[in-house]
Amino acid sequence: MSSPPSLLPVTGIRWGTASAGIRRSKRDDIAILDCSPGTQTAVVFTQNRFQAAPVRLARMNLNKTSPRALIVNSGCANAGTGERGYRDAWRVCEAAARALGISAEEVLPFSTGVIGELLPVEAMVEAVEPCAGNLRADAWLDAAHAIMTTDTMPKGVSVRTELHGRAVTVTGIAKGAGMIRPDMATMLAFIATDASVRREVLDSCLRQAVARSFNRITVDGDTSTNDACVLLATGAAGHPEIARTDDAAYPQLAQAVQSAATALAHAIVRDAEGGTKFVEIAVSGGATEKDCLQVAYTVAHSPLVKTAFYASDANWGRILAAVGRAVVPTLDIQHVSIHINDQPIVHNGDVAPSYNEAAGQAVMAQEDLRVCIDLGAGDKREVIWTCDLSTEYVRINAEYRT
Amino acid sequence: MSSPPSLLPVTGIRWGTASAGIRRSKRDDIAILDCSPGTQTAVVFTQNRFQAAPVRLARMNLNKTSPRALIVNSGCANAGTGERGYRDAWRVCEAAARALGISAEEVLPFSTGVIGELLPVEAMVEAVEPCAGNLRADAWLDAAHAIMTTDTMPKGVSVRTELHGRAVTVTGIAKGAGMIRPDMATMLAFIATDASVRREVLDSCLRQAVARSFNRITVDGDTSTNDACVLLATGAAGHPEIARTDDAAYPQLAQAVQSAATALAHAIVRDAEGGTKFVEIAVSGGATEKDCLQVAYTVAHSPLVKTAFYASDANWGRILAAVGRAVVPTLDIQHVSIHINDQPIVHNGDVAPSYNEAAGQAVMAQEDLRVCIDLGAGDKREVIWTCDLSTEYVRINAEYRT
Repeated sequence: MSSPPSLLPVTGIRWGTASAGIRRSKRDDIAILDCSPGTQTAVVFTQNRFQAAPVRLARMNLNKTSPRALIVNSGCANAGTGERGYRDAWRVCEAAARALGISAEEVLPFSTGVIGELLPVEAMVEAVEPCAGNLRADAWLDAAHAIMTTDTMPKGVSVRTELHGRAVTVTGIAKGAGMIRPDMATMLAFIATDASVRREVLDSCLRQAVARSFNRITVDGDTSTNDACVLLATGAAGHPEIARTDDAAYPQLAQAVQSAATALAHAIVRDAEGGTKFVEIAVSGGATEKDCLQVAYTVAHSPLVKTAFYASDANWGRILAAVGRAVVPTLDIQHVSIHINDQPIVHNGDVAPSYNEAAGQAVMAQEDLRVCIDLGAGDKREVIWTCDLSTEYVRINAEYRT
Repeated sequence: MSSPPSLLPVTGIRWGTASAGIRRSKRDDIAILDCSPGTQTAVVFTQNRFQAAPVRLARMNLNKTSPRALIVNSGCANAGTGERGYRDAWRVCEAAARALGISAEEVLPFSTGVIGELLPVEAMVEAVEPCAGNLRADAWLDAAHAIMTTDTMPKGVSVRTELHGRAVTVTGIAKGAGMIRPDMATMLAFIATDASVRREVLDSCLRQAVARSFNRITVDGDTSTNDACVLLATGAAGHPEIARTDDAAYPQLAQAVQSAATALAHAIVRDAEGGTKFVEIAVSGGATEKDCLQVAYTVAHSPLVKTAFYASDANWGRILAAVGRAVVPTLDIQHVSIHINDQPIVHNGDVAPSYNEAAGQAVMAQEDLRVCIDLGAGDKREVIWTCDLSTEYVRINAEYRT
């Protein structure tokens, strides 16, 4: 993915960014989102039992009141920092609240970066003032930059749709490249729309979108302690409120949010740490959707399959071996067929008659791979997205803290 | 692990080796084991649904009669080769049978190496004659060499014990360095003893030993299509037959076989592809043994934990994040404590009071790490062994077929 196309402003949403020098860098590393009164907010958080301080505080604040601002920092996850970490997150919320003239409970904090280090609170509090003093409707790309950690490029998307005759915008940004195996949420994603939506409906819309986008990607199987995905609806588009999921306009809204979430999820996989391939794994013919996902993730997490992708090596035996060890009670390898892009690879558990090494190499040399695995056991299907495993992934993660 | 100490002969067992030039190499790559009449044999095979031709044939032969010989080759796994692969394995057994003057059903075939390539049957049949003409009681180390693939060193062990007043020997060899996450068996291990044991008892003894040795190691989470572990008992030691598991001598036998199996399993992890660390993961305080294993394997398979081991980086946040995503219903991160070797790292979900970065780095710099994770939820415990993830692992597996 190259730099995101122009990101459309969402009426009622403004971003400011500033540098707190968190990783001794001069680049902007904090971002504040300010939303207009009445904005509805839905959030999904990581399901990891080890939850970072900002995740715990954001959950708490969300239960108390409707958020008016988000404050996000990169470089430090504020995870594994105990009660001190919680107090630090609270102090940052207080500073943002002061600068914006709202209460600290109305601020949701988000952090991403190294686990187990304390937030540099003083520097952050100092940076909040210029950050809040610089709010702009057209700063989505700046915010996408400010929240990056090992990401090599900012990730953002805008989708336009029409609801009850009014033009509506959905714009989102995300960060993430490693420790990616979201479970009800992704690393960090912030999506906003000017649609008018009741909070419960917004919540359904977000959960539905996340289930088939962020929750269907994996880089390394490692679920983050700081994952969160936020969806805001300002209502500025001025159409009649979508108050129920059977509203005639709900499908369009859901579709627009789903498109934005999928684009951001794919952008994360395309920017995977050390990744050189974008791999879709589509499993069909399963007795259940769970079986399909079990096979898909076993293949996606196999280090041997991932290194074969990296080497552009048509080592289909490794794919079949991963399918064979997936925990699927009804699996019969004699019914399994596999093709990659348009090339049949395995037919009924054996190498496909039309397969030869040259054809295998030609298809594997492509940067985008679609691995289709048919289990021949039913009519269920699932799709996930992943990447290869390179020496660069190991280097990045061996050197991350140094 | 350096080269194995001297391997003791087992009366009744002889090995021969030869070169069939399977990977265009001149080194010995086939090995034949010949055992005396009356030898009892127990075997466990891979649980991968995708099973190689030699595994299917060995199962078949084992059901028909008592084996008199094993034939093993490295360089080609004869997996994913369909009916042709099955016929090829049978032809190799026939050749071995002719050379040894036994029937082909009395030969068990084992193959290890690249998946999805055909066996070079003609070359192998030709090499069987010199291989069988060269059987020696003291060729265990030669056999350990001949079965190697990406292994950097041969793996073997001898254990001595006494059963019913007679000295008894247990000697074993194994191969394996990648695609290691055995499930009821390991890559390939051949263990023999001159103890006199009824087949059913030998079977129990093997399954018990494998459960706590080969089935407790993981290099990369990938279960092989060709795993097998064989235990032979020739009875040459001349003590009264051990016919039941409540025989007074059974515990000593079980202990000796367990020791041999554990030594071989550890040798595999120490020679793991690209591995630079030997890591024991001991999980205690679990509500169930399954919970303990779930946590242990989640940590052992986390690419981020493994790259931190590789970097000697005391990135305990990654370990805690892996514990936090393990599928353990009762897990409360506030009760989790971790120490590595003698260094407390995490206490009740937070960094341990006595921990500092220098102490963490000092302990992580060691080559042998014992990561102890207490879940604080019960009295169950489990131990597994694993290694780190290095750029070298990726390089080896990206280049394996080239």
